[in-house]
Amino acid sequence: MHDCDVVVVGAGIAGLTAARELSGAGMDVRVLEARDRVGGRTLNHSVGEGGDQVVELGGQWVGPTQHQVLALAVELGLETYPTHAAGEHVFEDDGGTTSRYAGTIPRLGRPLVMADYGLADLRFKRLVAKVDPESPWLAPGAERLDERTFAGWIRANARTRTAREALAATARAVFSVEPSELSLLHVLFYAASAGGWDDLLDTEGGAQQDRIVGGSQLISLRMAEALGERVALESPVRAVRVGADGVVAGDVRARRLVVALPPTLAIRIEFDPPLPAERDQLCQRIPMGWVIKCMAIYDEPFWRADGLSGQAFSLPGPAQVVFDNSPPGGTPGVLLGFLEGRDARVLAEANEAERRHAVTGTFARLFGPRAAEPTDYVEKNWAAEPYSRGCYAGVFGPGAWTGYGRALRRPVGPIHWAGTETATRWMGYFDGAVQSGRRAATEVLAAEGVVARA
Amino acid sequence: MHDCDVVVVGAGIAGLTAARELSGAGMDVRVLEARDRVGGRTLNHSVGEGGDQVVELGGQWVGPTQHQVLALAVELGLETYPTHAAGEHVFEDDGGTTSRYAGTIPRLGRPLVMADYGLADLRFKRLVAKVDPESPWLAPGAERLDERTFAGWIRANARTRTAREALAATARAVFSVEPSELSLLHVLFYAASAGGWDDLLDTEGGAQQDRIVGGSQLISLRMAEALGERVALESPVRAVRVGADGVVAGDVRARRLVVALPPTLAIRIEFDPPLPAERDQLCQRIPMGWVIKCMAIYDEPFWRADGLSGQAFSLPGPAQVVFDNSPPGGTPGVLLGFLEGRDARVLAEANEAERRHAVTGTFARLFGPRAAEPTDYVEKNWAAEPYSRGCYAGVFGPGAWTGYGRALRRPVGPIHWAGTETATRWMGYFDGAVQSGRRAATEVLAAEGVVARA
Repeated sequence: MHDCDVVVVGAGIAGLTAARELSGAGMDVRVLEARDRVGGRTLNHSVGEGGDQVVELGGQWVGPTQHQVLALAVELGLETYPTHAAGEHVFEDDGGTTSRYAGTIPRLGRPLVMADYGLADLRFKRLVAKVDPESPWLAPGAERLDERTFAGWIRANARTRTAREALAATARAVFSVEPSELSLLHVLFYAASAGGWDDLLDTEGGAQQDRIVGGSQLISLRMAEALGERVALESPVRAVRVGADGVVAGDVRARRLVVALPPTLAIRIEFDPPLPAERDQLCQRIPMGWVIKCMAIYDEPFWRADGLSGQAFSLPGPAQVVFDNSPPGGTPGVLLGFLEGRDARVLAEANEAERRHAVTGTFARLFGPRAAEPTDYVEKNWAAEPYSRGCYAGVFGPGAWTGYGRALRRPVGPIHWAGTETATRWMGYFDGAVQSGRRAATEVLAAEGVVARA
Repeated sequence: MHDCDVVVVGAGIAGLTAARELSGAGMDVRVLEARDRVGGRTLNHSVGEGGDQVVELGGQWVGPTQHQVLALAVELGLETYPTHAAGEHVFEDDGGTTSRYAGTIPRLGRPLVMADYGLADLRFKRLVAKVDPESPWLAPGAERLDERTFAGWIRANARTRTAREALAATARAVFSVEPSELSLLHVLFYAASAGGWDDLLDTEGGAQQDRIVGGSQLISLRMAEALGERVALESPVRAVRVGADGVVAGDVRARRLVVALPPTLAIRIEFDPPLPAERDQLCQRIPMGWVIKCMAIYDEPFWRADGLSGQAFSLPGPAQVVFDNSPPGGTPGVLLGFLEGRDARVLAEANEAERRHAVTGTFARLFGPRAAEPTDYVEKNWAAEPYSRGCYAGVFGPGAWTGYGRALRRPVGPIHWAGTETATRWMGYFDGAVQSGRRAATEVLAAEGVVARA
């Protein structure tokens, strides 16, 4: 049995941030990670000649208002580079016709369609302004907002099929679930927590603006490196016991515990004594999204020579949102397509060759026949990962925020909750993970009577 | 290591029925139960002089169309008796005025209110008729029905506050969650699976018609008695391994496994290899309801002398639905009140004395001051139970049925799924549990090439 001050379960960005803060404040910390690697929902993958280039199979982007993760990246000596965006983007409408566009939202169709989309967008943003992400359950009319699904809201607020499909694809891109699964209040909260709806959707100026040189997993790898032997890999925590002698998790005994897991995984730990009903019931109501991230590798980013950015928005899909995901030097060329929500579920029943065919088929319609013949293809189904069980994040269905949200960050005795799902700013993103880790560390230090560093 | 043909996890009605069927067909079966008792969400409790009378802290009722559990009860030598219903029921309106009524739905208010309620009820029943409980995802317009919450449907289909509150209280009584948490499609499915909406709500002719002499836990106790040493108590299964040598659960190795747990508990088992993504994602989307079942014990059922049945429907609550739950002989007198959904959550934060005060306060408003002074009070918060984590059953929020429902009964290799949440008839009830256990047993026998008994 190893004794320390604080044990952290989960070596993703949230858990490692908590451990880093606690260790920096002089606490003896130990991090227990189930996998044989750190990084949680981030994962680097080598590509190119000799495997000297990196792409990410998990979360990858940082945006300009994600101050906490950007500051952490600087502390860790990491650099960012802009997501490739030069050139025109491609839009494929419901009928399979492609066109080029600039900006975030393409010309979806006739002026009526654009007016329809624009009006819905405007109405939505007015609602976002009502929600304080610190306490969405207190928003004016919160119960009514929380009894509607985003799908129902879309149906009531967009009249044209194309605008509805575009909004649904947007929801899929942000949450990796179907709009029917989302509480309207959760979508509003999420946008508010990001500073606005456009902040979620945009590349330049938004959540997809920048990437981490060397791959986003470096954020966790660098923190783990500094923590050294304080991080134990291949140490899944199945049970936690809280007693007079403190908290015992795996082979570690500590005074306090930080659980830095997605809520649906946190309750798979057997707690003794059992968690309070409200905590368990809350976590039963935060399922994970489902995304299969798919990348096709080419000798070069050939679409750039055609004046194309590699970014695309395809209503027919199944890869509805596409990016040029080439490493900084542009070699190899990489096209990234997401299978999300419905599309992930349906294509998870196919085999890899069929998915590759479906995804590169979308790419070929968008960028020409060369896209159908990649030199390599790589994919990651995050819902199949036993230590994630989905991505990007946990989502709140109707009734969850107003009914159970107050328990989201409430400690249970010496147990504190981290993870991007507990964040008030950029929930679901790296930035939310960093915020949550810092907040949990601050709670622990306050409870232990230690003055936190500034 | 104990070797057998089939291992069953969970000794509630579903698991024990599966084991009984399999054993009857000649299979060597072993049932592993986490608790120190069988019965799952049923639990007998002794009351009265010398503790010779029984009331139930968990599920208790059987209805006349619940043919599978009624036949099983007969096989087990159990008898039923009618829920006490003689006399007038009491209704308390939103303003705290009480009145007497007969039948299931009281006179809620002015004729306008009754017309409003009646019209909503009619519209709802027309929708129920469209849903085949075998495959709710195939109902006409299933996706639209599954993108609405029951709360949203109530708001659109009932115009008066009283009718809306009555419908919400009804949903709470049936599902023990708030109407905002329920997919409209799930509510329709649930009613269809019971044969109709009234079948769920009614005492005489419906789900609350009869009780089991000696208490409903006897269903499980009798089955376990017959299975003898095949049932192992205090044997929680934390991990399951499927390999070339079969399925290993706890200290049992078998060719096949029946998991007879609520979905949210099933995925807390660590499966090796991990469950397919679709199974895990489905179970992430079936949270449990939250009910605290509260009973006040009196020397006699004094309300009967006043011509009252002991049944009541109170909009102010917090015990919105009340029954005379006295044992068959009428001694002692027992009033039963349910705290469900919102009311369970709020009052779980109080202590037992405060809950007793709140519940007997409702009783006193309904039946007079004597009800405020019970000789005893007993309650059970099912969401706090680590091996239930809620009652009555798992519920489906929007998007769950249409997105994931097809996986509900799909075996995973040698793993079969039982539990009332997998039933097509009387899901959420004993009857559904029996059906699910039989269906799982039939699957196993078919896979093993054994001809099932008629």
